[in-house]
Amino acid sequence: MIKKEYFSVKFADDKLIFIDQTKLPFEEDYVETDDYERIAEAIERLEIRGAPLIGIAAAYGLSLAVKNSNSKNLEEIFQKAYQRLHKTRPTAVNLFFALNEIKQVYDQNKNNHEKLYSLLLKRAKEIHLDDIEKCRKIGENGLKIFKKKSRILTHCNTGKLATGGDGTAFNVIKKGFENDLVEFVYADETRPLLQGSRLTAFELEHCGIPFAIQTDSMAASIIKSGKVDFVIVGADRIALNGDTANKIGTLSLAILCGYFDIPFYIAAPTTTIDRTLVSGDDIKIEERGKEEILKINGIPIASINYETYSPAFDVTPSHLITGIITEETIYTFPYNFIK
Amino acid sequence: MIKKEYFSVKFADDKLIFIDQTKLPFEEDYVETDDYERIAEAIERLEIRGAPLIGIAAAYGLSLAVKNSNSKNLEEIFQKAYQRLHKTRPTAVNLFFALNEIKQVYDQNKNNHEKLYSLLLKRAKEIHLDDIEKCRKIGENGLKIFKKKSRILTHCNTGKLATGGDGTAFNVIKKGFENDLVEFVYADETRPLLQGSRLTAFELEHCGIPFAIQTDSMAASIIKSGKVDFVIVGADRIALNGDTANKIGTLSLAILCGYFDIPFYIAAPTTTIDRTLVSGDDIKIEERGKEEILKINGIPIASINYETYSPAFDVTPSHLITGIITEETIYTFPYNFIK
Repeated sequence: MIKKEYFSVKFADDKLIFIDQTKLPFEEDYVETDDYERIAEAIERLEIRGAPLIGIAAAYGLSLAVKNSNSKNLEEIFQKAYQRLHKTRPTAVNLFFALNEIKQVYDQNKNNHEKLYSLLLKRAKEIHLDDIEKCRKIGENGLKIFKKKSRILTHCNTGKLATGGDGTAFNVIKKGFENDLVEFVYADETRPLLQGSRLTAFELEHCGIPFAIQTDSMAASIIKSGKVDFVIVGADRIALNGDTANKIGTLSLAILCGYFDIPFYIAAPTTTIDRTLVSGDDIKIEERGKEEILKINGIPIASINYETYSPAFDVTPSHLITGIITEETIYTFPYNFIK
Repeated sequence: MIKKEYFSVKFADDKLIFIDQTKLPFEEDYVETDDYERIAEAIERLEIRGAPLIGIAAAYGLSLAVKNSNSKNLEEIFQKAYQRLHKTRPTAVNLFFALNEIKQVYDQNKNNHEKLYSLLLKRAKEIHLDDIEKCRKIGENGLKIFKKKSRILTHCNTGKLATGGDGTAFNVIKKGFENDLVEFVYADETRPLLQGSRLTAFELEHCGIPFAIQTDSMAASIIKSGKVDFVIVGADRIALNGDTANKIGTLSLAILCGYFDIPFYIAAPTTTIDRTLVSGDDIKIEERGKEEILKINGIPIASINYETYSPAFDVTPSHLITGIITEETIYTFPYNFIK
């Protein structure tokens, strides 16, 4: 069966069109909007998610805010939209990178209201195209990590749904598969929001890559059994020393890889490197609401009165990371990214 | 608010009464039966679960099979019930221990059909009472592991709902709390069947112990933050060298404790030690159906066509276990249990 092609975001007719990822894999529902507030909500609700994709969507959103302004309320609207989009999620650095790129173009051209929107949009599209190209190069560079036809474990979602292009860690797997270097993929379901069993599984199926879903707690068991050659995941923010914030559960995987002596890779564009952070200690970790743990699809699985601990990300120390695959090259420990 | 007292199993009027644990915490539904087949189903469906409790329920079930036989079909019924209960779940050794205890009494008294049932029932009740006493002693012995008022992480459920008495690892926490030695408990939700967020949370709340629920993938993050003083869990089967099979996710926790240098404890009655096994390599691990991963409360969370990897347990090597708390004493590495 040939699967219908899907996309994460598209920009057309002055509107952002995005697939609502909270409804996947059951519904492929595309939302069209030119309202930055709707885009901000989509990022908060994880309808749009994945560090690179959040940045792209925010860049379009901020540009659209200007389209919907007039020369009188321009400054007010822009600042409001910038602040609103800025506070949607605190961890992925790509968001701040993209918003600041748009802000720079804005600051240089805000007195030219007539041309401003098209200039901002041009920059947003460049960010988008740039991410597509970075994904492509990450996939190519990633081919070097395969020593044989491999069995791979991955966590969360890092494919087309998480980026503007074909993904980060997922694209390494995809390119590997296209080169007959992937035997099987174990996809962690990735609680609480199940990006693994909902989104990565959806993307693996689309690509025809053989896979199994497991709960996050099963990773140790499958690695111990010898059936995993390496683990590869994405990143939400990387410090200059290589410490990496990524989806909650990543730290545990990196420690398991160290214990069982298999490689642990990060794949991310260099835009994920936060050039202001010396180490991972200063990465702000988002704490999510208790509903995400105590409900699934809106239905309580435990008493909603219970207290929860619910960080969205954890930070993996760089010495546990075998390599960071970027669009430039594969960096290895010790990491010394330049300010 | 005073909570209504609950129980896992009770034997009265020639019937086993058990709480259907799959409905907790939303419904406290008790099932009454004298049908061993119903008890076997309850064990398979995890209406009755927890290694010690499975053994107790099976002992009552096998006794009830004899009650419902006559002198002509006795042997056939007994063998059928024995086989049926024996194959319900493969990992918890307490099941086989209890069934064999009942079988011994049967073999010695099968020609005395009139008295047989009451003799079997007497043995089943002894197994039940013995477990209550073992739980009590585990709780008492466990007090020795507290060096100060502690923050504890636990996984799965090991309380009243998992045993005939007040629990194993849970009872160590409970006794600690009663002695003002417990500050806070982090309860892993324990995917796929959520025994942590459904059952342990229910029991912690009943005891008034402060706690938070987290996904299993959050354990590394909370341990890294320094907010966990030790991890304690139960066991389904322990080999002579101390290798321990327990709920999937346990191995990961033990490795994390090693990495972050905090103690990792097992609490279990000595009936959980399989005296026939030299090491954990030979422990048979139950693989559960894909529905447990792909559905929650019967509702699909991912495509039900996806392949899954779903072991119910994993095996933790004994060198990662700081101590095994039994009703006898606290054993420490190297473990050399006697055949």
